[in-house]
Amino acid sequence: MGIEMEQTCVELSNVAVSETHGEDSPYFAGWKAYDENPYDEFTNPSGVIQMGLAENQVSFDLLEKYLEEHSEASTWGKGAPGFRENALFQDYHGLKTFRTAMASFMEQVRGGRAKFDPQRIVLTAGATAANELLTFILANPGDALLVPTPYYPGFDRDLRWRTGVNIVPIHCDSSSNFQITPEALDAAHKEAEAMNYKVRGVLITNPSNPLGVTIPRQVLEEILDFVIRKNIHLVSDEIYSGSVFSSSEFTSVAEILDGRQYKNAERVHIVYSLSKDLGLPGFRVGTIYSYNDRVVTTARRMSSFTLISSQTQHLLASMLSDKNFTENYIKTNRERLRKRYQMIIEGLRSAGVECLEGNAGLFCWMNLSPVLEKPTMEGELELWNAVLHEVKLNISPGSSCHCSEPGWFRVCFANMSEKTLEIALQRIRHFMERIRTQSV
Amino acid sequence: MGIEMEQTCVELSNVAVSETHGEDSPYFAGWKAYDENPYDEFTNPSGVIQMGLAENQVSFDLLEKYLEEHSEASTWGKGAPGFRENALFQDYHGLKTFRTAMASFMEQVRGGRAKFDPQRIVLTAGATAANELLTFILANPGDALLVPTPYYPGFDRDLRWRTGVNIVPIHCDSSSNFQITPEALDAAHKEAEAMNYKVRGVLITNPSNPLGVTIPRQVLEEILDFVIRKNIHLVSDEIYSGSVFSSSEFTSVAEILDGRQYKNAERVHIVYSLSKDLGLPGFRVGTIYSYNDRVVTTARRMSSFTLISSQTQHLLASMLSDKNFTENYIKTNRERLRKRYQMIIEGLRSAGVECLEGNAGLFCWMNLSPVLEKPTMEGELELWNAVLHEVKLNISPGSSCHCSEPGWFRVCFANMSEKTLEIALQRIRHFMERIRTQSV
Repeated sequence: MGIEMEQTCVELSNVAVSETHGEDSPYFAGWKAYDENPYDEFTNPSGVIQMGLAENQVSFDLLEKYLEEHSEASTWGKGAPGFRENALFQDYHGLKTFRTAMASFMEQVRGGRAKFDPQRIVLTAGATAANELLTFILANPGDALLVPTPYYPGFDRDLRWRTGVNIVPIHCDSSSNFQITPEALDAAHKEAEAMNYKVRGVLITNPSNPLGVTIPRQVLEEILDFVIRKNIHLVSDEIYSGSVFSSSEFTSVAEILDGRQYKNAERVHIVYSLSKDLGLPGFRVGTIYSYNDRVVTTARRMSSFTLISSQTQHLLASMLSDKNFTENYIKTNRERLRKRYQMIIEGLRSAGVECLEGNAGLFCWMNLSPVLEKPTMEGELELWNAVLHEVKLNISPGSSCHCSEPGWFRVCFANMSEKTLEIALQRIRHFMERIRTQSV
Repeated sequence: MGIEMEQTCVELSNVAVSETHGEDSPYFAGWKAYDENPYDEFTNPSGVIQMGLAENQVSFDLLEKYLEEHSEASTWGKGAPGFRENALFQDYHGLKTFRTAMASFMEQVRGGRAKFDPQRIVLTAGATAANELLTFILANPGDALLVPTPYYPGFDRDLRWRTGVNIVPIHCDSSSNFQITPEALDAAHKEAEAMNYKVRGVLITNPSNPLGVTIPRQVLEEILDFVIRKNIHLVSDEIYSGSVFSSSEFTSVAEILDGRQYKNAERVHIVYSLSKDLGLPGFRVGTIYSYNDRVVTTARRMSSFTLISSQTQHLLASMLSDKNFTENYIKTNRERLRKRYQMIIEGLRSAGVECLEGNAGLFCWMNLSPVLEKPTMEGELELWNAVLHEVKLNISPGSSCHCSEPGWFRVCFANMSEKTLEIALQRIRHFMERIRTQSV
C-alpha cells in the first residue's frame, strides 16, 4: 500500500487474528477467480461467468422508472428543502416514515397475512449487521446457535467472528429434501450439549439460501415447538421472502405466531433486508423485527454501530410508501424470477442435470453427485475446480455451505442477463457431454 | 408497543443486560429533558435550549448551495444512468472515487502537511463504528485502553459494551490545562496493571471533545514515545480536525509520523468522520486510517457489519472531489466557528464565567467550579440539575465525561442560530446574577 513502512509486531486481538470470519472458503475464492477474469460478451467471451453471487438484477428497470418519475425522492430540489433535517437525522429509531413504509412493505410481501408494528422495526446497515447484532443480544461467547445446513457461508462470519458464538449444524440432507426434521433438531441439540455449549437459539433462513425453497408451515410449527420446549430463541432470516415465486407458497413465522395469538412470541426475531427482494445491497438496508421488548430496546441502542444513511432512508421512504409502485414491483419481480428459474431448470435438465425442486430465491440447488469421481467432499471440490477453471463458471460448492452430502452446488441466476444465462447453460451442456463421453 | 404480548423470561446475553453502554448518564438524560420540552423562539420560548449536542449547523448554506448547483451528485437523472452499479455496489473497499476524495479532504483539512493513501482508508458507518471496530481489533475482552479524561461519554458504549474491553482513565486536570502529562500516562498504566488489565493502547481525541482544544505537538511526541516504549497502540480520533479555528493550530499524529519517517507507524490508527466537520451525522460516514497492513485488512473485512450506503458515497465523492467547494468550505467553516466561539466566550465572560481557552470544536469547556455549593461531583450534578430545570439549558456535566475535577461543563454552540445562542447567554447571565445576589 502506497507509503512503505516497517511492519513490526505490535500485537492484535484474538478476534483480529482468528480465522472464524470464514473468508478463506471456496465460496469467496470463486469470487476472486471471477474478479480476475470476468466474462464479457464482447471483450472477454471466454471469461468466468459469475453464478456465485445472489444478486437480483431482473427488476432494476422498475426501480429506474420510479426514480425517473420521482426525482424528488432522491434529491432535495431548489434551495434543498429538507436537506438540513435529513443530514442531521441520526436518531437510532430511524425515520418514522421509513420504518412505517418498511413495516407495510413486509406485510405486502406476505400477502397481507401478517401484521408488523413500525415500533418494533430496528434498522441496521444490512442483514449482515442484523444477524450479528441479534447474536450479540441472544448469546454469550462460547454459547451456540443451531443452524440448519446447508447454510449461507457468510453466517460463519456474521454469527461467530466478533461474538465468539459457535454454530452447531442441524444436518439436513436429500432424504428429506433438505427440510429440517425433529430428529435433526434433537441431534444438533445433543451434539451441542456434548460439546458443553449452552444452546441459545435456532437460526433458520426461510426461504432457504442456498436451497431456494420455503419451509413448510408444518416444519415451522415443529421448530417453534422445539424452541419453546428448550426455552431458547428462534431467529427467522426472511430476506428472500419477496423472492418467493408465488406469495402463497411462503409462510412467515409471523403468520405462525399470529395463529397462536402471539403466545411465546417473545423468543422470536425476524431479520429482513432490501438487498435481495429489491436488489439494493449497496444501500445497506437491513432490519430486525423482534417480538421481545427488551430485544427491541437493546437492538436499537446497539444499532448505533450500524445505522442506515438518512439520505437512503429518505429515498426509500418515498419509494416504499408508494403502493402502486410496491404492488406492481412485488408482482412483476416474482414473475420474472419464476421465469428465470424455469429457464435454468429446463436448461440444466436438458443437459442431464437435476436440481432440488425450488420455489424461491435467486439460485437453484444443483445435484452433480451422479458425476462425482469420488463421493466425498474432496471429490466435490475437484469437480468445483474443474467447473471454475475449465468450464469457467463460478458456482458455490455445497461444502462451503457446510452441506453434509457431497455433490450439491448453489447456482445463481438473477445477477446476469438471459443471454449470459444461456451461454452459461451451453457451457454446462458441453461439460456434461464431455463427462459422459469420457465415462463411456 | 402496538401488539400486546406476554413478555416471559427467555434469557438474553450478558452484553444485552449489561449497563456498560453507559446511556444512563446525565449526558443522555439531558437530551431527553430537551426532547420533552424543546425551545422554540415562537412556539415554546421558555423551553429547554439544547447545548448538549455537538452538531455543526453553521455552514449548511454552503452544502445546500453545492447541492442546488450540482443536482447530478444526488440524483441519477433521466433513465437513471449509473443507478444499477451504484445500487449493487457493496464491496467493503468502498467506492474508489469516494476513498480518494476522503483521503484528499483529510489532507486539505491538515493544510497539506500530511499525506493519506486512499488504499489505507477503511470506511465505516460513522466514527462510532470506527472506534468500536478498532477496539475489537486491538484488544481482547478484559484488556484495557487508556483514555484521557474528560472524554466523550459515548466512548463508554463504543469502546466497552460489545468488546468487553475496559477504559482506564488518564486523569487530566486544570493544573495542566487538562493536557496529558507523562506522569498521568504512567499513573494510568500503573493503575491498569494493578487491576491486572493488559494495556493494549492509548486513545486520544485531537482536538479534544469535550475540551475544545488541540493537543500540542510536544505532547503528541510524548504520547507516541510512551506507546512505543510500552509496545502498545495509539488511536487518534481526529473527527474535529476540520473544526480547528485555524489550521496552523492543529498537529495531526500523521504529521508527527511523517517527521519520524513513519518509524513505528504500524501502531498508529486515525479515526475520522464527516459528521462534525461537514455537519452530516445522518449520513453515517466514518473512516479508519491505519498505518498497519494487518489492521487495514482486518478492519476492511469487519466493515461488512457497518458499510456506508453507496448512494451516500456517490453523493460525497462528487462533493469532496470538487476542490473549489472543499477549499471554500473548510476556510469559511473555520471562520464561522471561530466567530461563534468568540461570541459565547465573551458572553460568558460578561456573565462572570470563564472557560478553558479553546481553539477548536463545537463547544467550550466552562468552569462553574467557583459557584458550586459543594466542591464535589454531587455539587456539580446539583448545579447541572438547576441549569437544566430552572435555567432551561441542557449542558453536559464534566462528570458524565469522567472528569476528575468537579464544576466543569461542556457547552455546545454550533447547533443553533446566533439568536438562540444570545437567548442562552442571557439566561446564563440572569442565573449568575441570581447566584451572586443569593450568596451576598
